[in-house]
Amino acid sequence: MVKGRLEAFSDGVIAIVITIMVLEMKVPDEANLAALRPIIPVFLSYVLSFIFLGIYWNNHHHLLQAVRHVNGRILWANLHLLFWLSLIPFVTGWMGENNFSAMPVALYGTVLLFAAIAYFILTRVLIDHHGKDSILATAIGRDFKGKISPVFYAVAIPLSFVNSWLSCVLYILVAIMWLIPDPRIERNIT
Amino acid sequence: MVKGRLEAFSDGVIAIVITIMVLEMKVPDEANLAALRPIIPVFLSYVLSFIFLGIYWNNHHHLLQAVRHVNGRILWANLHLLFWLSLIPFVTGWMGENNFSAMPVALYGTVLLFAAIAYFILTRVLIDHHGKDSILATAIGRDFKGKISPVFYAVAIPLSFVNSWLSCVLYILVAIMWLIPDPRIERNIT
Amino acid sequence: MVKGRLEAFSDGVIAIVITIMVLEMKVPDEANLAALRPIIPVFLSYVLSFIFLGIYWNNHHHLLQAVRHVNGRILWANLHLLFWLSLIPFVTGWMGENNFSAMPVALYGTVLLFAAIAYFILTRVLIDHHGKDSILATAIGRDFKGKISPVFYAVAIPLSFVNSWLSCVLYILVAIMWLIPDPRIERNIT
Amino acid sequence: MVKGRLEAFSDGVIAIVITIMVLEMKVPDEANLAALRPIIPVFLSYVLSFIFLGIYWNNHHHLLQAVRHVNGRILWANLHLLFWLSLIPFVTGWMGENNFSAMPVALYGTVLLFAAIAYFILTRVLIDHHGKDSILATAIGRDFKGKISPVFYAVAIPLSFVNSWLSCVLYILVAIMWLIPDPRIERNIT
Repeated sequence: MVKGRLEAFSDGVIAIVITIMVLEMKVPDEANLAALRPIIPVFLSYVLSFIFLGIYWNNHHHLLQAVRHVNGRILWANLHLLFWLSLIPFVTGWMGENNFSAMPVALYGTVLLFAAIAYFILTRVLIDHHGKDSILATAIGRDFKGKISPVFYAVAIPLSFVNSWLSCVLYILVAIMWLIPDPRIERNIT
Repeated sequence: MVKGRLEAFSDGVIAIVITIMVLEMKVPDEANLAALRPIIPVFLSYVLSFIFLGIYWNNHHHLLQAVRHVNGRILWANLHLLFWLSLIPFVTGWMGENNFSAMPVALYGTVLLFAAIAYFILTRVLIDHHGKDSILATAIGRDFKGKISPVFYAVAIPLSFVNSWLSCVLYILVAIMWLIPDPRIERNIT
Repeated sequence: MVKGRLEAFSDGVIAIVITIMVLEMKVPDEANLAALRPIIPVFLSYVLSFIFLGIYWNNHHHLLQAVRHVNGRILWANLHLLFWLSLIPFVTGWMGENNFSAMPVALYGTVLLFAAIAYFILTRVLIDHHGKDSILATAIGRDFKGKISPVFYAVAIPLSFVNSWLSCVLYILVAIMWLIPDPRIERNIT
Repeated sequence: MVKGRLEAFSDGVIAIVITIMVLEMKVPDEANLAALRPIIPVFLSYVLSFIFLGIYWNNHHHLLQAVRHVNGRILWANLHLLFWLSLIPFVTGWMGENNFSAMPVALYGTVLLFAAIAYFILTRVLIDHHGKDSILATAIGRDFKGKISPVFYAVAIPLSFVNSWLSCVLYILVAIMWLIPDPRIERNIT
């Protein structure tokens, strides 16, 4: 079974999710700078989610490189990941429109947490299918970032009710951690 | 005539349908847990439709694997299927926003029924074009699930006016039936 | 220059146009049959536009089959076609929400007219690039349907101010004409 | 690392951005010509942005032709470009709905400026990866248009507060400059 359509469908969903998020930035009626001010938190939450979705697309791209064949379980593990990613526009809009207050920031982290778990499940299902000595298993490796990210989210969710800005700092730290290139992985793939 | 664009276009439409459904989950104005409560039925109907669209994408993916060539009739049979799938966001939103009351649940089943019929027509048109002894015809086989699903919908539609939750149970049963892997088909394709 | 991305981009735009049209069908607040009644004309206009976009996608699919190489002019002729197609959701919504009254029906025809002209220009630019003796030129042939369609639209636009339903009949006639398979073209391509 | 998914994802995002812009053209309630009048500036800003996005897609298409391999930095440089392009529907809607008044026209230019810078960064990152003597570097050449465009935007942004129509003229001049075919580049690619 070829992986081409799995990639194409995932690309399509992530591209749409990343783009419809911008629809949450409602065009203001007034044409002055003051009218833009309430949009600033919505814009900031958009930037954060754009980066997270970019990271997911990037990692998905890398992961699928090493995939040789897919089966029904893999298709569903992938759809499960896309499901959680599809909820990002909703929580992004809620967080931005309520100026990063406790409950929306906690729900944002919850969706990120479930997306991270879904990604982890996808890697396990793929390794299961390709074998522990496959190029894929080697490319995924110990997956330190994949394992530490859910811990950050799990801390950030309750922390949000103490100080929601601290939770946002944790989300940003996770994003930065993923943005720092990992030469070991790129070398492995080559 | 190559099937690549047929797959790409179908992937595109299904990816968009699955993603714009989430736009029916309107971001609430308040930032507390109570504000999320009216969204719960919308969310549940979203989950159900996400699974149904996932099943359709999965089956479409499998079906097209065995396709060798396409013609005008096949393109239109496929567009006919996509038409019914494109109505799913509308009925999903109506069902969720009205807390699974009788009429929306019946209309939801009606759209699922027509989508199932459209999928059945697509398989017939494909077998017609490839021959009864083709790999495609063998892969489709007796198509038990494809034939029993419309029966479930046809029962669920009138049943909705008696008890709409029973209809939802029937929809969930159909989804579970399709989610259970069918090793025979995967073996046939290999 | 390869044509793969031209096809992929066109597929993407047409898939999105065909799907966001459904967003014009606003989910009604009430959960009864009466609440669906005002949506019926919107639904009918959606069906008509779905068929027209399906015809365009089909024809575009056939046309690009015979294309060997693309250049800047072809890319822009194609974008010009996509521009007019992208206006279809707007005119479809306006026509449906105003129950097929004169002005919206005339504007609907105007957009169809410009789309037909854009498609005609695209075929000319393609023949120009491939030569009059190319397979492409033979496949396009006399292009009777492509030449008669704009005439229908040009009649339907002023006619709408006399009786807008007659214009709709003309639009439906054009759609039927394109839906009737043309064995000569399929044979030529083979 | 293959470039196929980079192209597919970029095509997807640009196709969605170009299409959801049309959603800013809200369907009017009345069915007469007067109801269309307030939509005219929204339509004009849509046409302008459609052309700009068409130019970006065209240039991206050409640029990627000469690309041989991609790495993490290239993926992010590309996502950075897509980020600025994704903001175009928002600024297009704001500019159109406020009849091309000073602040929205300035913000429109700002987004175009950042998109131009992002495109420039993408070309540098690509040349960096392929070498200064690569076909890619030759194809990009001195990149006169790419260097002069940001200058136009940088002039247009403050100018908007003097006369916003003059800024629009500058935007149109940039668009025309890119629309004029550049035979040297097409020759180089061949």
